[in-house]
Amino acid sequence: MPEFATSQEFTREEVGLALRNPGMPLEGLRYPITPIGMHYLLAHFDIPFIDPATYELPVTGRVGKPLGLTLDDLKARPAVRMPAMMECAGIGRAHLSPRPISMPWHNEAIGCSEWTGTPLRPILEEAGLLEDAVEILFTGHDRGIDQDVEQNYERSLPLEEALREEVILAYEMNGQPLPPQHGAPLRLVVPEWYGMASVKWLKEIKAISEPFEGLQQALLYHYRQSEEDPGTPVTRKNPHALMVPPGIPDYLSRTRHVSPGRTLVEGRAWSGYGPVERVEFSPDGGRTWDDATLGEPVGRYAWRPWSYEWDAGEPGEYELCARATDASGRTQPADDGAWNQGGYGVNVVQRVTVVVG
Amino acid sequence: MPEFATSQEFTREEVGLALRNPGMPLEGLRYPITPIGMHYLLAHFDIPFIDPATYELPVTGRVGKPLGLTLDDLKARPAVRMPAMMECAGIGRAHLSPRPISMPWHNEAIGCSEWTGTPLRPILEEAGLLEDAVEILFTGHDRGIDQDVEQNYERSLPLEEALREEVILAYEMNGQPLPPQHGAPLRLVVPEWYGMASVKWLKEIKAISEPFEGLQQALLYHYRQSEEDPGTPVTRKNPHALMVPPGIPDYLSRTRHVSPGRTLVEGRAWSGYGPVERVEFSPDGGRTWDDATLGEPVGRYAWRPWSYEWDAGEPGEYELCARATDASGRTQPADDGAWNQGGYGVNVVQRVTVVVG
Repeated sequence: MPEFATSQEFTREEVGLALRNPGMPLEGLRYPITPIGMHYLLAHFDIPFIDPATYELPVTGRVGKPLGLTLDDLKARPAVRMPAMMECAGIGRAHLSPRPISMPWHNEAIGCSEWTGTPLRPILEEAGLLEDAVEILFTGHDRGIDQDVEQNYERSLPLEEALREEVILAYEMNGQPLPPQHGAPLRLVVPEWYGMASVKWLKEIKAISEPFEGLQQALLYHYRQSEEDPGTPVTRKNPHALMVPPGIPDYLSRTRHVSPGRTLVEGRAWSGYGPVERVEFSPDGGRTWDDATLGEPVGRYAWRPWSYEWDAGEPGEYELCARATDASGRTQPADDGAWNQGGYGVNVVQRVTVVVG
Repeated sequence: MPEFATSQEFTREEVGLALRNPGMPLEGLRYPITPIGMHYLLAHFDIPFIDPATYELPVTGRVGKPLGLTLDDLKARPAVRMPAMMECAGIGRAHLSPRPISMPWHNEAIGCSEWTGTPLRPILEEAGLLEDAVEILFTGHDRGIDQDVEQNYERSLPLEEALREEVILAYEMNGQPLPPQHGAPLRLVVPEWYGMASVKWLKEIKAISEPFEGLQQALLYHYRQSEEDPGTPVTRKNPHALMVPPGIPDYLSRTRHVSPGRTLVEGRAWSGYGPVERVEFSPDGGRTWDDATLGEPVGRYAWRPWSYEWDAGEPGEYELCARATDASGRTQPADDGAWNQGGYGVNVVQRVTVVVG
């Protein structure tokens, strides 16, 4: 289980992870599809080096006909090109107090790429799932030690989730071969769920007859209030709106400086529980809210653009906020009511301090 | 001038910068050309959003015939495709004590891309430098506040450096249009110098008759021992060898775990003062050194591969080190003899703790 910090300072381990795992600078919210190299990344262990020419993916376990698929086999199958927004389950962790010691994300663990790949379901159908299969286990080539356990990164999906038609095995990102750091040569993409489900560098797909109890499944990625709390698994993305911080930044503090007058504030919003139906903007730290204008996302699993013309008015300091509400009625908390032990799924309202003048 | 920290903990500002500015995870040293999106990035202010269709670059100042070059004009000129290793001048800053508060790089502020662009010299010749031109000033579109001064990022080069044939205006990285974060649509690439010289998002090129005294030129990017020390400007890259940390990592501590027996340790080395002529490896924290095997770089300005077959031997903890020596005789210090106020050009020997067993 995690160690915690209450300090405003960060440990060398947290900084080490931040230097390895890039976030998307929030000005990247200007793009409907995140440019290559700006998408967030979380690699638990090292980025593996895999030769695509000799790559083969076994589909095994509780199936009638085990398969071994080369990259050419996979590319010969029906291809879909699908925009999908992805967000790390650890987003917002650094806003919590006490803060679990892990990757210290603030708001930048996001991106929206166009993924090209082949649907998983027909592959599982071809392999012939046996009656007793209850989950599909996805194992990555990335290997290391976490919580003193040596392991490959691996996660399972319940059968009904694995069989969703939009769950794909992706070999391209934005029309290019997957970069090594994003899972080359082949990764899973599970729209609507947090990123931990979209296993990178796939080594094996296995139908299993008992729920998977591995560390990344049963111990980590749970919403728990204490170590004793059995908690609930982290699955779909909570609703979340973020804005491009307006104006220009200070290099070190990143405080924003905005000219008086009208400023178009732009951002994007998403949810894993249904389409975003409302985005609200507040210029005063959440005391008053007004509806933003919504645009159309470039695809069902993409983020939705929004904008708000803000009159920056008198010189002074302002705290800008945005919040999303989705079709299920879920919205975002104002503070760390979202606290949980692992620091997962934190969707507290974004707060951007700007100085007008 | 910078604030300092002596603590092993890092400030929220340092972490904010680390989350915006990705490093290259050291397993990326496996690639002669860094895959797109893995190259380090340091953007002082926000990543600007520039429409390439209406982009125009003025070449002005002390010239006989000012130019205005569109992207099509630039692409119609002679093109070169050049591998060049790039390294942030702030590399190693976080190893120092006291540590200047800025981007807290450890060893990952590196990358080697293939840059496609057109040489600067013929453009300056076409514009006709006047007799009194002494420097060329490069201004970026990126704007913000640093040390309480609002500014566009801008840096100059002495004439003799700006006229080197390998100084190019680049519009492609690894054969693709520059990604927004790496300077789209046009950036400067100055091989052999630290990255601060390779101004991104070029807004203007201006011949000037007096040395440029802007903040990023005259105050920052100097080797100083104290605030009063006038110091010397940061220019060329110091010699530097880095290895891919062998074995597998622990998620949080990144401690490496290696099996007993032979391990091929691989890395790359570079210098801005001449070709790397020697790389040495130490398995015992620098007490004993042995020569590594050198390979050939993919270009004059690329990094040089090296390898060393290490017998990991008995179980226990080892501290692996590597150091480079270049044709000028320069090498790397064992400790922070490299200390300077801004934390620039730090090329202390890399130390990788591995546990064998």
